[in-house]
Amino acid sequence: MNQRVVIVGGGFGGLAAAKALSRAPVEVVLIDKQNYHLFQPLLYQVATAALSSADIAWPIRRILRHQSNAQVLMAEVTGVDAARKRVIMGEKTQSYDYLVLASGATHAYFGHDEWAQYAPGLKQVIDATAIRRRILLAFEQAEIESDASVRNSLLTFVIVGGGPTGVEMAGAISELARKALAADFRRIDPRTTRVVLIEAGPQLLPSFSDPISNYTKRALEKLGVEVRVGSPVTHCNSYGVRLGDEEISATTTIWAAGVAASPAADWLQVDRDRAGRIIVGSRFEIQGLDGVFAVGDTVLCKNADGNVLPGIAPVAKQQGTYVGKLIAARTQNKPDPKPFRYRNAGQLATIGRRAGVVDFGWVRFKGRLAWWFWGLVHIFFLINLRSRFTVAIHWLWSYLTFDRGARLITRDL
Amino acid sequence: MNQRVVIVGGGFGGLAAAKALSRAPVEVVLIDKQNYHLFQPLLYQVATAALSSADIAWPIRRILRHQSNAQVLMAEVTGVDAARKRVIMGEKTQSYDYLVLASGATHAYFGHDEWAQYAPGLKQVIDATAIRRRILLAFEQAEIESDASVRNSLLTFVIVGGGPTGVEMAGAISELARKALAADFRRIDPRTTRVVLIEAGPQLLPSFSDPISNYTKRALEKLGVEVRVGSPVTHCNSYGVRLGDEEISATTTIWAAGVAASPAADWLQVDRDRAGRIIVGSRFEIQGLDGVFAVGDTVLCKNADGNVLPGIAPVAKQQGTYVGKLIAARTQNKPDPKPFRYRNAGQLATIGRRAGVVDFGWVRFKGRLAWWFWGLVHIFFLINLRSRFTVAIHWLWSYLTFDRGARLITRDL
Repeated sequence: MNQRVVIVGGGFGGLAAAKALSRAPVEVVLIDKQNYHLFQPLLYQVATAALSSADIAWPIRRILRHQSNAQVLMAEVTGVDAARKRVIMGEKTQSYDYLVLASGATHAYFGHDEWAQYAPGLKQVIDATAIRRRILLAFEQAEIESDASVRNSLLTFVIVGGGPTGVEMAGAISELARKALAADFRRIDPRTTRVVLIEAGPQLLPSFSDPISNYTKRALEKLGVEVRVGSPVTHCNSYGVRLGDEEISATTTIWAAGVAASPAADWLQVDRDRAGRIIVGSRFEIQGLDGVFAVGDTVLCKNADGNVLPGIAPVAKQQGTYVGKLIAARTQNKPDPKPFRYRNAGQLATIGRRAGVVDFGWVRFKGRLAWWFWGLVHIFFLINLRSRFTVAIHWLWSYLTFDRGARLITRDL
Repeated sequence: MNQRVVIVGGGFGGLAAAKALSRAPVEVVLIDKQNYHLFQPLLYQVATAALSSADIAWPIRRILRHQSNAQVLMAEVTGVDAARKRVIMGEKTQSYDYLVLASGATHAYFGHDEWAQYAPGLKQVIDATAIRRRILLAFEQAEIESDASVRNSLLTFVIVGGGPTGVEMAGAISELARKALAADFRRIDPRTTRVVLIEAGPQLLPSFSDPISNYTKRALEKLGVEVRVGSPVTHCNSYGVRLGDEEISATTTIWAAGVAASPAADWLQVDRDRAGRIIVGSRFEIQGLDGVFAVGDTVLCKNADGNVLPGIAPVAKQQGTYVGKLIAARTQNKPDPKPFRYRNAGQLATIGRRAGVVDFGWVRFKGRLAWWFWGLVHIFFLINLRSRFTVAIHWLWSYLTFDRGARLITRDL
């Protein structure tokens, strides 16, 4: 009987671990509460009506169809019984020999969970379609609103958080209003839309280098975005946000500020950092628990130089692959691979439709070239040919016409 | 001041009326509760995970962007004050000189509205994503279910109604199970899925000719669909359906049987037929109400030969265009156009991925040729180039691989 490797989470980390085990003499069980793997770096494009969710999400079992040692369960993990080596999913359990927790992260409101209803975050497909609905409805309601101050509030969009998601959302909303929607309304002028990007720290894209951060601020301002750095949000409700003494009236606020790890540390009852992440070493083993590993956004992992690795797709992927190979080696009584070292895959972000920033550490570039580089890289990493074609067509169409393909206001029951 | 034409509904009829008025000296106001025009004939492909909703739905204001005499309001009409010539939308009103009601139809349960929760119908985008979720979740739950009878019930799909939608749904679900999903599960075999198509009347596709109906039955059976004709459903609950003495255990039941008109007849307080449709003559005027017209699925209209026109897109389009031209003529004091005559645009349906039926009255064909004809016609009628490209790629991909592009289980909040 082959040993069983249970992987929790079908994101970049979990899927990489499963694939790295494809030739190992093990049984792989991947558990996710969703039925799809989501290409999160493009989720903001669903939220801003450029792409459909199906363009950037694929059934996990479809991806692993040809991996005969793998099976996929759609279920929500609620705990881990490490003593008896079982994963708990409500009333059902799944036993394991090796366990890989790749359960990701969600958004955090720094102790203000009540802000979630006013300022939705962007992690899942449902977040993206909900934000898309809010954005598009604001314009529709402004068109039929006769009170000027209500109309102004409807046409004000606040994005909290100046990381890549916040920067990309702000640029995309500003272009959506000023280009795609400009000619479609008769009573309002969408080009008067106010987009405010708020960052508590001293600069945008804090994990990038200073010149890139400064360029990003200027490029966003050119797109009509108001950028506020060094301005922590002190209050948030359905009328807008407060920054110290200043109030910004906005019907739509989007949260792109904080990240909290999945409850993996709770399940294992181990130590965590302030963001809830399990602190792991270069083999991703959980101290004191036999055969348990954790990778991706749910862990805090430092590089050889002592820097914390960022919560981006290449980090999770490389970690997942590493742990998959490590388990494959152990089940075959081979020596462990060398300790994990992150190969820097760079950091990228776009600013609207014409500019981007790329930071590899050893090389940096920005502007139109960076935008094209970003686009090619993202199309390349999409999971299959059909998605590459479809996304490429959507982007080409948008590039030429500034139109958006997925401007639907829908509400599932 | 130009006269104002208010159109209620942005479906095929309402949009055609608006476009026919593009050069008339009038102000056009189109009101819809959704922000999009939906290409309903392909909605079953969203429900069966082949297309995304954005592929077959476009913002109405985007479609009318360049028609400078038209404006679009997203609002729900709740009544009409014909005496004061006003449309009522909750607390807001909109006055008109001419009114065109093109408010469509919804599904009907023949006096059993409580069945709606067990057997959802397919009219709107939210219906399609809800049905897609139910279908895909049934397979996921079957994969983790240990009780064989529950598993069989999860793998049984009942479709009630043998018109084009029912036929197309049955064929698509059977192929989804037997082709797209076949290799993706480890514990269940999706090829054992049972798909039952139930029609109360004596044959499928009752509005088509007999040979076409008989062919459709055989073609569906070849795809593995059980066809029951002459079998009215007598009961419906969360465990399945009853046909007289027979019970069919099915977790998923889909309703494609009855159609009820929008409440337009209520708004106007005029006579209606049993399906709630306003009975109109060849100019679509409402007797006794000045400047009020109704077209499309919300009316009963007979052709010159005395036959009732079917509730299909070409009928609604031609009627909308006719009324638009009639109003354009009247506002310019020109004579009315000749009474409406429907130009037969044929009836089409597909049966899975390889067969179709086409019935023009004077010419009929079936099989693979009809399938290709159906595909070309539907791509041609999609609203813009981008959708044509995207849908063509999705279909080509499915045709070659039998894969489905939109297998997402999502639940909007």
